[in-house]
Amino acid sequence: MYSAKIKITLRKSILDPQGKAVEHSIQSLGFKNILDTRIGKYVELKIDTNSDEEARIVTDEVCRKLLANQVMEDYVFEVESVSAGK
Amino acid sequence: MYSAKIKITLRKSILDPQGKAVEHSIQSLGFKNILDTRIGKYVELKIDTNSDEEARIVTDEVCRKLLANQVMEDYVFEVESVSAGK
Repeated sequence: MYSAKIKITLRKSILDPQGKAVEHSIQSLGFKNILDTRIGKYVELKIDTNSDEEARIVTDEVCRKLLANQVMEDYVFEVESVSAGK
Repeated sequence: MYSAKIKITLRKSILDPQGKAVEHSIQSLGFKNILDTRIGKYVELKIDTNSDEEARIVTDEVCRKLLANQVMEDYVFEVESVSAGK
């Protein structure tokens, strides 16, 4: 069993109004030294396989086909082996 | 300048209908070996400070006060020093 942790972020060139809104909120709480806030998605999933390589291939395919919009978003992921009960 | 990367996830005991929906979509694409999909938020922000400790304290405070709902969500973050231009 493998666990994949995927971070999906808007490409740097794409405006992030949600991030801007959060940044304003943070600053109005008094944190004046916070800049460049950007919001993305975080996805965790389990892959029922014993192969590190298969886990990577499947995760990458799921990201490309479903989770990330590659026109606007970038994704990075890491996979690690976990025991089935976890 | 420090960069903080924050992952906010629903606590394990909380149902995640969005994750379930994505899991069904993944499985209907033919990936039958994907399980336990959970969706969270991912936030990146910059902190204008030279102190690693201050960056951690500020990030933790922002998470507690604004980004995460601690009743339902857990958060983890990492901070790293970056050059100002990045």
